[in-house]
Amino acid sequence: MRLTERPGDVTAALRTALEAVETALSKELDRRRSEVVAIDPRLGADVDRLVSHLAAGGKRLRPQFLCAGWLATASTTRTDANTSEQTSVPAAVVHAAAALELIQACALIHDDVIDRSDTRRGQPSVHRSVQKQHADRGWAGDAEHYGVSTALLIGDLALAWADDLFTEALVGLGRNGTGASGGSDEALAAWRAMRTEVLAGQLLDLRITADESPDPERAAADAMVVNRYKTAAYTVERPLHLGAALAGAEPGTVTALRNFGLAIGVAFQLRDDLLGVFGDPTVTGKPAGDDLLEGKKTVLLARARAALRSEPERRRELDSGLGTALLPPEVERLTRLIADTGAPAAIEARIAELFEQGVAALDAQDGTGRPLVYPAAAQTLRSLAAAATIRER
Amino acid sequence: MRLTERPGDVTAALRTALEAVETALSKELDRRRSEVVAIDPRLGADVDRLVSHLAAGGKRLRPQFLCAGWLATASTTRTDANTSEQTSVPAAVVHAAAALELIQACALIHDDVIDRSDTRRGQPSVHRSVQKQHADRGWAGDAEHYGVSTALLIGDLALAWADDLFTEALVGLGRNGTGASGGSDEALAAWRAMRTEVLAGQLLDLRITADESPDPERAAADAMVVNRYKTAAYTVERPLHLGAALAGAEPGTVTALRNFGLAIGVAFQLRDDLLGVFGDPTVTGKPAGDDLLEGKKTVLLARARAALRSEPERRRELDSGLGTALLPPEVERLTRLIADTGAPAAIEARIAELFEQGVAALDAQDGTGRPLVYPAAAQTLRSLAAAATIRER
Repeated sequence: MRLTERPGDVTAALRTALEAVETALSKELDRRRSEVVAIDPRLGADVDRLVSHLAAGGKRLRPQFLCAGWLATASTTRTDANTSEQTSVPAAVVHAAAALELIQACALIHDDVIDRSDTRRGQPSVHRSVQKQHADRGWAGDAEHYGVSTALLIGDLALAWADDLFTEALVGLGRNGTGASGGSDEALAAWRAMRTEVLAGQLLDLRITADESPDPERAAADAMVVNRYKTAAYTVERPLHLGAALAGAEPGTVTALRNFGLAIGVAFQLRDDLLGVFGDPTVTGKPAGDDLLEGKKTVLLARARAALRSEPERRRELDSGLGTALLPPEVERLTRLIADTGAPAAIEARIAELFEQGVAALDAQDGTGRPLVYPAAAQTLRSLAAAATIRER
Repeated sequence: MRLTERPGDVTAALRTALEAVETALSKELDRRRSEVVAIDPRLGADVDRLVSHLAAGGKRLRPQFLCAGWLATASTTRTDANTSEQTSVPAAVVHAAAALELIQACALIHDDVIDRSDTRRGQPSVHRSVQKQHADRGWAGDAEHYGVSTALLIGDLALAWADDLFTEALVGLGRNGTGASGGSDEALAAWRAMRTEVLAGQLLDLRITADESPDPERAAADAMVVNRYKTAAYTVERPLHLGAALAGAEPGTVTALRNFGLAIGVAFQLRDDLLGVFGDPTVTGKPAGDDLLEGKKTVLLARARAALRSEPERRRELDSGLGTALLPPEVERLTRLIADTGAPAAIEARIAELFEQGVAALDAQDGTGRPLVYPAAAQTLRSLAAAATIRER
């Protein structure tokens, strides 16, 4: 017996799984909160900041791709199980997906310290919110440094708790036999790689921001490496890999899903690059030309600079504006300048190409012509790919 | 067959295990370095900073107590195994011990950011060393913030890598049957608790530094909670617990070792408090009265303040000096003032009491009068306890 062939069923199973992720996440945080409060009741407020950071939203992309990876694999490999098990993502997989959201909480809380961001999803960033508490209550010492220090430790807690949740999921899965036996080694390898990749991507991002290559082609290649590891691997490729591994996928299925994930993940970040310059502030919720103000080292901006190789004056104009407190007319001027380089159109074409390449990977078959990715799930993945790459926010 | 009854054999096995921890640590970092360099060769320097942080020394207390916990348990539970297996700590346990040293690297690197420390073990702290590289090479942006941001991410890598190493050790142990089957759940529980406890202890330390209770008794109790979770549990109790759990210890053995660990761990930090005020700079390698200069909220200083309850003038004198850039004669004056409160003598007495209490826990027996902690290992643990609580640096 298999999941029914209708794509709608996979989409529905995915929706159910994501609701289960929310429940698992809040249960886990309740449990951890009570452990911390048993140490000292005043620490409850620190856990609450993590809880409200998570509750403030986010697209839950990583749990989504992890569960989709499981669904895309499970019904191709586990024909022996009964239907009710197959149509719903097991608890251990839901817990692994919830762990990804805790990793992401650590990444964002630490990122906001690194980027000195005042807000996140319309709320004060964690370090600013702690800083405000310190200032409001007239505590001793430097309020800003206190905010940063506390946020650093709250991020560390989220990272440690993510690992606990993932390891328990892995142990649970091994015990009740929901996954194939080889799956936990593969899942562990994906988990290892993912956390190293995102942190290495962030370190490289810092480095190329401080020490950008004078060669514009090299600078664009560097920005692409950051895109690949900081976003694509971490957001799409590895979550799919984890989901597939937890389902005990065969190597061909893992490869197909990772190829899909890498292409779609890179395209996802390229779309972000375009929105960071050309996005509509009323839709994105970010200021117009946000990436210009921040001086982000995106592939788009690196490509625009490379295109201005023979126009030193316009390139200087671009360079002198990036990362400064631009006024709206200056933002508009730079935005036009960038559009005129042709870089945005090239990026748009590259996104389309990556989208095609990604979805084509889903059609992979084994030697006997059997699809390596369950067709109904492939349909769901195509929709997720479209949503990730063709979007306005 | 059992480990021979001579305490020297346990001490020798411990020494061998600690050498194996060093080897495992450097092998693991080599492996992780090559993964990171494959992403971008420039990131090798970031891993090298972690490597030299670890190579710069440290007492390796946590690996030592973990391996001692294994040795204290293994021969009481595994009488079926052959002698050669019993006398050496298995690789998976060595890896778990190495993981503790990576957790500690994260804790110290992040602590140095929080405490704005310029040095660690006589070398520049990681954030300062990165800051210097930025300044020396004339990179773009704020060198200090770049140093902090990079150190934050290097610490995160160490934390993630610690979890990888521990989880792999656990999986490996389950697979080759070196431990009893129930051991991995218990070890996972100890690992979960340990990381939450140390981070909660650090958060509480920040909080009581910014918002010290006006009630001196309450302030002293708060400082003791920080001692317990930030130091005692993390440095002695949980490492022993982990080692015992990995050996598949019965509950009575776990309890005996944890009781020992908690008492000795608290005494260890109380000794640190005394050395932080009265230590000889030529021996400790830290400035005279280091804790006074830093304004650390130690149990010793809280007790001294509490003792000055009815002497408001001397208490103001103490309070106004703490956490300021004191000159040597002022340090000497405050040191004398603290000694005169009687608090150091009381702390000294408490250390002796905790030492007795700790070593007494090692004599626990089961219902049949069988020792719960292997006697030869108990002898080694008594020596470690003495070294941790009676020391000059």
